[in-house]
Amino acid sequence: MQSNSHEEGYDKVTWTTDVETHPPWLRFHLGISRWELYNRKDPNLAQLTHYLATQHILGSVQKKGGTQLKLLISFPNYGQALLKPMKQTRHAETDVNLFYFSDFERHNAEIAAFHLDRLLGFNRIPPVVGRLINVTTEIKEITTDRRLSKTFFTSPAGNVCFYGQCEYYCSVEHPVCGQPHMLEVSLATMLPDLTIAPRRSWRSPWRRSYSRTKLAQWEKDPAYCDTVKQTPPYNQGTRLVDLIDMAVLDFLMSNMDRHHYETFEQFGNNTFLLHLDNGRAFGRHSQDEPSILAPLQQCCRIRRSTFLRLRLLSLPDFRLSDIMRESLTQDPLSRVAPLLSEPHLSALDRRLAKVLQVVQTCQEKHDDVIYNDIEGHDQGPRSAVTA
Amino acid sequence: MQSNSHEEGYDKVTWTTDVETHPPWLRFHLGISRWELYNRKDPNLAQLTHYLATQHILGSVQKKGGTQLKLLISFPNYGQALLKPMKQTRHAETDVNLFYFSDFERHNAEIAAFHLDRLLGFNRIPPVVGRLINVTTEIKEITTDRRLSKTFFTSPAGNVCFYGQCEYYCSVEHPVCGQPHMLEVSLATMLPDLTIAPRRSWRSPWRRSYSRTKLAQWEKDPAYCDTVKQTPPYNQGTRLVDLIDMAVLDFLMSNMDRHHYETFEQFGNNTFLLHLDNGRAFGRHSQDEPSILAPLQQCCRIRRSTFLRLRLLSLPDFRLSDIMRESLTQDPLSRVAPLLSEPHLSALDRRLAKVLQVVQTCQEKHDDVIYNDIEGHDQGPRSAVTA
Repeated sequence: MQSNSHEEGYDKVTWTTDVETHPPWLRFHLGISRWELYNRKDPNLAQLTHYLATQHILGSVQKKGGTQLKLLISFPNYGQALLKPMKQTRHAETDVNLFYFSDFERHNAEIAAFHLDRLLGFNRIPPVVGRLINVTTEIKEITTDRRLSKTFFTSPAGNVCFYGQCEYYCSVEHPVCGQPHMLEVSLATMLPDLTIAPRRSWRSPWRRSYSRTKLAQWEKDPAYCDTVKQTPPYNQGTRLVDLIDMAVLDFLMSNMDRHHYETFEQFGNNTFLLHLDNGRAFGRHSQDEPSILAPLQQCCRIRRSTFLRLRLLSLPDFRLSDIMRESLTQDPLSRVAPLLSEPHLSALDRRLAKVLQVVQTCQEKHDDVIYNDIEGHDQGPRSAVTA
Repeated sequence: MQSNSHEEGYDKVTWTTDVETHPPWLRFHLGISRWELYNRKDPNLAQLTHYLATQHILGSVQKKGGTQLKLLISFPNYGQALLKPMKQTRHAETDVNLFYFSDFERHNAEIAAFHLDRLLGFNRIPPVVGRLINVTTEIKEITTDRRLSKTFFTSPAGNVCFYGQCEYYCSVEHPVCGQPHMLEVSLATMLPDLTIAPRRSWRSPWRRSYSRTKLAQWEKDPAYCDTVKQTPPYNQGTRLVDLIDMAVLDFLMSNMDRHHYETFEQFGNNTFLLHLDNGRAFGRHSQDEPSILAPLQQCCRIRRSTFLRLRLLSLPDFRLSDIMRESLTQDPLSRVAPLLSEPHLSALDRRLAKVLQVVQTCQEKHDDVIYNDIEGHDQGPRSAVTA
């Protein structure tokens, strides 16, 4: 992790100087900068995902925190990953009567979110890769977690299943099952340990109510952004447009579950926002959720770099759905089945057009919609966007 | 309820003498005999189901007992019915990794089980009818049940939903929802109150273990029936062949959840078995569950009347699937969608052939397979079977 402290502009790319003998997860940690988690040109990215996808699994225990089942996986050379299992068929749509806070987490959403965030030029999601694991030999037989191991069983169909212990969906009625042993999972690179790189958790100003009946303040007050704009840390620097970047990402993948975001403490307030925990994205392709765009719609502001990238991805030659489809084929699980079905890919294009429409509507009313974050940075890591 | 006490033969049909001014539910109660719940020729049957399907609903409260949500519905003239709501799309198959004790209850299974039991000539399931009810005006707005009413909410899709309080699937993750108000339900006629007609509950000797790991004794011991045959009440009368009738019914509809059965106490041990609670039937059409037939397979005994009826229903002109399809069209909900999909109907024919195959295999090894229950009863209520 680069401990520089200058307050603006992009950090110099330093991966070329990393010691090649370091394991890829450590090189990833060392490459984290103030403005992004990784540089998209860093060859270590491919090495890191290859490592997660192929290394021998040494240990599997339940990871605490959150409401749904996830495992912490250990690899040789102290590598670790966060595992989320496949819990429903790849293309199942979320039941229309389920609230966003009751929805399942999806392994393919974690994978697709990483790709989408990268293609948008954000680089704010830790690398995620898909893998087929053997539930018996890579979890059941090696786990030291008794609370986990006692939930294993063989299902009526002869599949090896488990459910773990957690708040939602950890019961025999909602098992995670191999076929009979092999299970699709997502593996997300772990961030540096909190003792080395403490993080701060921020409650999103556009957080939903997480209630069946109550509305959040931002849902009732069209002028809500005026208050946010005056409230630290949103009253200076890029924090507000960072939040809007995150809303654009979430709208494209229809993630309603962004209640908090995190930053690295050592970078203070002038730093990028981590887009962690995307398992509830990509739940429904047939509908869009305009309220996710509320920060953009209510604040009428967007980074120029983001706007240019979105415009580029709406052109026929660079269509977001095509670029996502292509990008996802690099994931090992794409050999099992496409990680996003065609209706989900089409939804991305449809939603992208809606984002651009909101920006245009803003521009018709306001002069200060485009926040120019790229003046003087045309050689920076996101320069390709502006070419 | 006919309080006769002779120990064999069919009771004389008495419905013609029932007072026509009695409400249909009361006439149903009065028509219950030692050997069957109703006479299939009784015109009151159609009046009873019409009553349940059309009468104004006066009250709706949760019904205690069991593990899943069900409601007790009140009608004018003191009629009552047990309501089970539609909880999954009509044709969804049970997940292969779910145990029989974790499966949802299905409203259409309750309806189809009543028809199947009647077509088999058993008449041991209280009449069940389907109905489209208005969740808002017929439950939410009239219930006096606070535990129920506080679980109502409007879903993200704008549907009126509730989940009640029970052991399984009573949570916001498993809502019962109208579209936006109308919900398919099954309504089963209530039996006479337990204070008037007390019932005895018997644990089935072929009860499953209700465990993820343990096997029941009958699953381990092929000679299990030898013990049962010597154990009262199975050592005399028709109790053993009654149990085998029930196994045939359950195998045909793939109901693995028959842990208990009931009888009316006043009829002692020489009486029919009530086939209550069939909501977990018809969960899977693509597979059969041979273990449900264990009582037949292990005891190698079957009523002659049942055997003849099964043989009749395997003939092209009387094919079970055709007769069930025809019978189910009489239910009001068949106007919404067929109550059993074609794969479920075909499964009935396939399973019927398997039952007859098991009988034949028995007959190749034993002489006493057919239990002659119809000698001298050719004019009785089930005479059509033997014609």
